Amino acid sequence: MNPEELIAIAQAAGRSALTEAEAKQLLAAYGVPVVTEETVHNAEEAAGRAEVMGFPVVLKGLGTKLTHKTERGLVRLHLRDREEVLTAAGEIANAAAGDLEGFLVQPMLAGKREFVAGMIRDERFGPAIMFGLGGVYTEALRDVTFRIAPLEATEAAYMPDELNASAMLGRFRGEEAADREEIVRVLTGLSRLAMAHPSVAEVDINPLIVGPDGRVTAVDALIVLGGAELPAAPPRDLSFLVTMLAPRSIALVGAKRAQDGRWQNLMVMITSYGYTGRLYPINPRADEIEGVPSYPSLRELPGPVDLVIVAVAAPLVPAALEDCIATGNKNVHIFAAGFKETEEEEGLRLQKEIEEIAARGVLHVMGPNCMGLFNPALRLATWISPPTRTGSVAFISQSGGHSGDLAVLAARSGLYFSKAISYGNALTLDSTDFLEYFKHDDATEIVCLYLEGVRDGSRLVREVADINRHKPVIIMKGGLTESGARAVASHTGSLAGGAHLWEALFRQTGAVKVSSLKEMTDVLLAFRHLGVPAGRRVAVLGTGGGIGVWAADSFARAGLELPVLTEETQSDLRAFIPDAGNMIKNPVDAGIAFTDFTMLERALRAIAADPLVDAIVVTIHLDWTFNFATGKYIEALAGYLAGPAREHTAGKPYLVSWQRYRAGAGIEQAETILYETLIAAGVPLYEGLPRAASALSKVVAYHEFQRARCPACRESF
Amino acid sequence: MNPEELIAIAQAAGRSALTEAEAKQLLAAYGVPVVTEETVHNAEEAAGRAEVMGFPVVLKGLGTKLTHKTERGLVRLHLRDREEVLTAAGEIANAAAGDLEGFLVQPMLAGKREFVAGMIRDERFGPAIMFGLGGVYTEALRDVTFRIAPLEATEAAYMPDELNASAMLGRFRGEEAADREEIVRVLTGLSRLAMAHPSVAEVDINPLIVGPDGRVTAVDALIVLGGAELPAAPPRDLSFLVTMLAPRSIALVGAKRAQDGRWQNLMVMITSYGYTGRLYPINPRADEIEGVPSYPSLRELPGPVDLVIVAVAAPLVPAALEDCIATGNKNVHIFAAGFKETEEEEGLRLQKEIEEIAARGVLHVMGPNCMGLFNPALRLATWISPPTRTGSVAFISQSGGHSGDLAVLAARSGLYFSKAISYGNALTLDSTDFLEYFKHDDATEIVCLYLEGVRDGSRLVREVADINRHKPVIIMKGGLTESGARAVASHTGSLAGGAHLWEALFRQTGAVKVSSLKEMTDVLLAFRHLGVPAGRRVAVLGTGGGIGVWAADSFARAGLELPVLTEETQSDLRAFIPDAGNMIKNPVDAGIAFTDFTMLERALRAIAADPLVDAIVVTIHLDWTFNFATGKYIEALAGYLAGPAREHTAGKPYLVSWQRYRAGAGIEQAETILYETLIAAGVPLYEGLPRAASALSKVVAYHEFQRARCPACRESF
Repeated sequence: MNPEELIAIAQAAGRSALTEAEAKQLLAAYGVPVVTEETVHNAEEAAGRAEVMGFPVVLKGLGTKLTHKTERGLVRLHLRDREEVLTAAGEIANAAAGDLEGFLVQPMLAGKREFVAGMIRDERFGPAIMFGLGGVYTEALRDVTFRIAPLEATEAAYMPDELNASAMLGRFRGEEAADREEIVRVLTGLSRLAMAHPSVAEVDINPLIVGPDGRVTAVDALIVLGGAELPAAPPRDLSFLVTMLAPRSIALVGAKRAQDGRWQNLMVMITSYGYTGRLYPINPRADEIEGVPSYPSLRELPGPVDLVIVAVAAPLVPAALEDCIATGNKNVHIFAAGFKETEEEEGLRLQKEIEEIAARGVLHVMGPNCMGLFNPALRLATWISPPTRTGSVAFISQSGGHSGDLAVLAARSGLYFSKAISYGNALTLDSTDFLEYFKHDDATEIVCLYLEGVRDGSRLVREVADINRHKPVIIMKGGLTESGARAVASHTGSLAGGAHLWEALFRQTGAVKVSSLKEMTDVLLAFRHLGVPAGRRVAVLGTGGGIGVWAADSFARAGLELPVLTEETQSDLRAFIPDAGNMIKNPVDAGIAFTDFTMLERALRAIAADPLVDAIVVTIHLDWTFNFATGKYIEALAGYLAGPAREHTAGKPYLVSWQRYRAGAGIEQAETILYETLIAAGVPLYEGLPRAASALSKVVAYHEFQRARCPACRESF
Repeated sequence: MNPEELIAIAQAAGRSALTEAEAKQLLAAYGVPVVTEETVHNAEEAAGRAEVMGFPVVLKGLGTKLTHKTERGLVRLHLRDREEVLTAAGEIANAAAGDLEGFLVQPMLAGKREFVAGMIRDERFGPAIMFGLGGVYTEALRDVTFRIAPLEATEAAYMPDELNASAMLGRFRGEEAADREEIVRVLTGLSRLAMAHPSVAEVDINPLIVGPDGRVTAVDALIVLGGAELPAAPPRDLSFLVTMLAPRSIALVGAKRAQDGRWQNLMVMITSYGYTGRLYPINPRADEIEGVPSYPSLRELPGPVDLVIVAVAAPLVPAALEDCIATGNKNVHIFAAGFKETEEEEGLRLQKEIEEIAARGVLHVMGPNCMGLFNPALRLATWISPPTRTGSVAFISQSGGHSGDLAVLAARSGLYFSKAISYGNALTLDSTDFLEYFKHDDATEIVCLYLEGVRDGSRLVREVADINRHKPVIIMKGGLTESGARAVASHTGSLAGGAHLWEALFRQTGAVKVSSLKEMTDVLLAFRHLGVPAGRRVAVLGTGGGIGVWAADSFARAGLELPVLTEETQSDLRAFIPDAGNMIKNPVDAGIAFTDFTMLERALRAIAADPLVDAIVVTIHLDWTFNFATGKYIEALAGYLAGPAREHTAGKPYLVSWQRYRAGAGIEQAETILYETLIAAGVPLYEGLPRAASALSKVVAYHEFQRARCPACRESF
């Protein structure tokens, strides 16, 4: 019977799952090695087959209504002769009562190591493939890893090493290392099965046994039906985004005059930032607003504009959208809040209403409940005091606050935006649509995202993986528990919280994960200026204050290494650092080097020449340094680190960190000088070693990922 | 045979371990439930015993040279009749070759759940007790927890829940929950065994099986001999510390005049801070230094001083110590570096030399390689620009840099020191000695430690646990890999890295763990001002900018809860917060409340009255708030939060957090005003919600620990 037939028969019988025998047949069709087994009708037949098969055997009760067989006492292991098979068959028949339809006879496999593999369908990410630790510990330990389907062999090959228990896949207690290729075949087989059969809702192979010879066998399997394919998003022409995101004309529906109130309005923000396109305020009760001639309605405009911003109260939004349709306006930013984000009846109703209107009019909607577009090249912003410079960072944010905040925060580190988009409730346009746009936007070199949810997770994975090869993608995921809560029948399902699937996204795309806007800026700074580190080995040059231990701990926590410098480097350093001893091994605790640039240069050159060193971190104890020449020295030091030091580090990635403990205007001024000098020169600068270590480690990991998965991409980077 | 005899016989025979049968006998004597078993001499006898015992049985080869029995094929499970026992015995005899001395016959225990328990002796912490996940996964998963002995039942009872796999101890796949009391008896039995028999180096019970009825049985055990008791530190009279740490007279050996050099010398630092005691500079080539009459040698002083500070170069230190002995000076701070911390030959030699001198002269030595004592009440400091106020925080630090840095950093948060001690290489005085002092120091209410190593870890555990009951102890442990590398024979040993034992210290003392000086200050601030939170439930009141999701994530990461506010509270808030919806559930995103104190007061009162709320966090988006009345508003807001708000929060712990993204002098000034106003008023203030959440969660966890382990202590706190 072919897979389609197997499933069709079960569906026709109204069954919610395949029998164990059917499940294994289906899996075998997708290349999963399953245990040899025979279906028999009665005890006598079971005993006969067992004799042919060879003892010991496993006997299981079989029936379309029999799931959770272990719990019901329908599985008997280690049966060693004919008589035991007959006894077990009798006991199983009793336990199964009327539901028994036959028996399954299997050889009893040897193998200390049990794993679990499976597939679930998530409402956002679609089919996801799981690999994990099996046996009695499966649910107690939840040692699992996921990938979003479709899953290729090259990607599946990473999954085994992601388990805490991955050591069990090597040689283990006298047994051979597991056959990795066979595990990969199981996982990719599950992926192909999921893609080919939308009606399969869940698959659970538990246990997947690794034998003494390392071979892998599916011993038990559950396949739940009732899955439904997510309606595939129709291929969409997104070319309108070129106009919508660089609008040369804007109509602002609901434009208001400046008020005395504390919150400034959108009209004031747009005009005061100096929007360079044509702006049409729409307000039925005004002739001009902020000196700009205004119109009573969209219908009075000479024609459609590139972007309509709807800034009226939520209940008035439906009418405004109808106006858009009537006037041929397609590109809309709904600024107003008061929709589904309120989680209240009225808001949910309004969201449904505008959803219907947008679909009917084929509108392209940013929002509602969002700040919309920031385009510094056109001087378009919807908040107060945005930076005016343009740059190469794009930000796609589900939160409007984060969008404005990152723009001003990044500017303090000399990082500027090509565009930022706050898209709120994602009525029609979701993060993935904007990603596609930035993939082709020449002005954008790095893409940041702040995501809470996603509509089509599978497409997001594909887009992120693709764009990340050439433009690093940095993602802050808000909401630890998003998705996740679903009623499921399988282990795989109960192990698949939303967090696992988001984790899968990071693992298979190589996107950089951050947890705050500050960290996002730290990582941006490193990507913007560092170049490509050759590896994880870091040398730290700094001044005292427990710096040695703190540096070692900080870099170890970030997964980087501080190798002991070569004898040659140590001897170079010893030549001019007195009482060197332990202080020149790495980190190099050379206070003296910071009092004399000649020595600092010698130290940097010696470290940079060390073949064990992939990146260099200079760390400054600002209080100590401030004590030299009451701060004047810091100015000179900053100048050195911003300029000549770059030549003395042999082109290796080079970062500076500082810490300050004392307060006071003098030392604050010194800090500002250090900060401004280095940032202006493009030297990544961090407060404290942990932040430097974390940012550097993420850049290293990014390039490791790309080198491993896409060797060709590195060249084009 | 009693335990002493068992061990003595094995030792007399020169054996490095007990046999399995002996090991179980010894364990049984300490209350560990062991499997029934019989020792027999040959195959025939084994089969006979098995018949009496009942099948199935386990057969093991026995012999004084036979360890790692599974790997050598000397263990046979599931033997079900006489014939199988005879066959297995033959195979075992072959595998063991000449080393076989007999067999062990055991009933084959049913039980899906396998754990491991054991004991090792660490060179710093002494005996430590382990509990972990057993079976085939033991070493692959390393799911273990430790305690430093001696271990009481009340403390052992916490260990099972610390495993990742703790769910397996509840009802599990049709089997009863594990007998917790029996597990506790195993662990405390191991502790008593360790304390009673110093010659037992390691104990390994693997597996410790939990049966279907929940009963616990040690099925296999290894006991390694060759342990040696750490020489117990003689009870020490530390009363000299009262004088040494508040010295009214100091001799500074190696006092120098001020130089032009960049580093200031000790004489200048001590005099410029205004030491209030009698200072005797010692320098053979001067009559006065910095205006203070000086002496050529300690021998010329009228008598002993309260403290001698030795600030000569390392090679001259031995002679200076001899002078101390000759003049009856006992209390010495060795400032000089250049000893074992250099890890070089000369430094190690010098360290040995001064160790011998100090022991001979019974000197009390702080150092070498340290900043020594900071006593602001006496105006004694050994670094530049220390704070002049005194406070209630004590700091014991192995790093001199950290000591000075924390003092100035904490001062910025309005936190001041009673004393700080930097003790470097801990020649005679270690952290624990100073802890004992601060336990009885009335001026000290909170104790901070920065530790890299420890000499007597067991005593440290006792002291920290004791003082922490009344004065919170906050510890930063530097050096992730300290201790740990040892040759061991048991699972327990291979699972006991140094990190596990330091973790045990935190778990059993309830000391607060931090990983940077900044975090130490954050936690100090919370302890200093917060009072006792009743639980983990927090309400957050703040202004927009993705605050909702970020707040929920930040507090969840810190292990705190954000309960949905009661209907009553929500309805109170809805009365004056327009378009409330989702924004009043918690966090309360009420921008409007921050524009009007009347509303802010109403919001705070409503939240504080909610019975689900244990603590309140107000969070300020400084950029947004700065936009009102160009910053003037922040001044008023700070005043409200520092004063009236305290009355509107119903005595519940109350913290403020802020974040700023924009740069600029105006907003920096606003930040300073907010900071200074709140700190002066004793309101804990944090940059960013994650820091506020982390600090609060540590205070909550501290009080939870004390409430659970020492209900009586809370009253006296």
